[in-house]
Amino acid sequence: MRKTIAIDMDNVIVDIETNWINFYEKEFGVKINKKDLLGKPEDEAFPDAVAARSLLYKPGFFRNAPVMPGAIEALTELAQDFEIYIVSAAMEFPNSLAEKYDWLAEHCPFISWRNIIFCGDKSVIATDFLIDDHLKNLDFCKGTPVLFTAGHNINVTRHQRVNNWTEAVAFIKGSVAVEELA
Amino acid sequence: MRKTIAIDMDNVIVDIETNWINFYEKEFGVKINKKDLLGKPEDEAFPDAVAARSLLYKPGFFRNAPVMPGAIEALTELAQDFEIYIVSAAMEFPNSLAEKYDWLAEHCPFISWRNIIFCGDKSVIATDFLIDDHLKNLDFCKGTPVLFTAGHNINVTRHQRVNNWTEAVAFIKGSVAVEELA
Repeated sequence: MRKTIAIDMDNVIVDIETNWINFYEKEFGVKINKKDLLGKPEDEAFPDAVAARSLLYKPGFFRNAPVMPGAIEALTELAQDFEIYIVSAAMEFPNSLAEKYDWLAEHCPFISWRNIIFCGDKSVIATDFLIDDHLKNLDFCKGTPVLFTAGHNINVTRHQRVNNWTEAVAFIKGSVAVEELA
Repeated sequence: MRKTIAIDMDNVIVDIETNWINFYEKEFGVKINKKDLLGKPEDEAFPDAVAARSLLYKPGFFRNAPVMPGAIEALTELAQDFEIYIVSAAMEFPNSLAEKYDWLAEHCPFISWRNIIFCGDKSVIATDFLIDDHLKNLDFCKGTPVLFTAGHNINVTRHQRVNNWTEAVAFIKGSVAVEELA
């Protein structure tokens, strides 16, 4: 049976940080530097946290977000050997459900609807790997947690860290290779 | 830690069979008897299967479906002792995502967004119990499968069957009681 990988959307395959910065500037006329977001909880990193959070409810916020560099190529490659599930905690923002579905249909047409999961808490998702940027998900996952670097998590010291999709693919493939040798 | 129960929506807490019959009559002027659906795959049970399936894409189909008898009372009772997750294979019908979310907000306001999962394939959902009407879900579940009786599954002989919510609550509570005694 093929090994399974759960892959988060925001900050992992969707460049939601860049998107948030762009929306914030467009809406409030203040340009935030990515460096200013480092090591802080996402919404609190903006000058006005409540205003920043309000953007998450704006139509189009999730639908038009850019793709994370290398994400599509990496998923295409991993999908050859692994069963990939996109697992997004979309339920907190119900307006994002349709937008995230449409985003995936546009950018990841090779992912079947069977392999898409929109949830709240990810602790009942059982896959061999979870690639995610949040400890609230990684700390409770049933497989191997893989921390995908995002501005807010740069000071986190637990879990295997990958800084980009090249490292993520190398780590996953390496883990399986080691397992097969053992 | 509280035991977890994954609970399907259609034919389990949502009376989608009655809803489908009502929509079919309203749309095509043909009244189907529930008895005629017994033992047949859901959409094929209607005189015109393609027409029946087309109803699933109609706005309002999922939003306005009636509640299964006793479902809310049962969920309220189970939620006292168990962690309940609503797990619906909504992804096949993306138009249903928002409708199912709103349905739950109306009828099950005691279920947090954290405990709602919309997916395709349920095989990566790991809960202690899965209450569902479909073998495609129950056959691959990681916990104890519980077959909730629906017209289409009356001839199924595998898995523990419950015919209604009174039986479902009794079975779940009984299983845990037996386990605690062992």
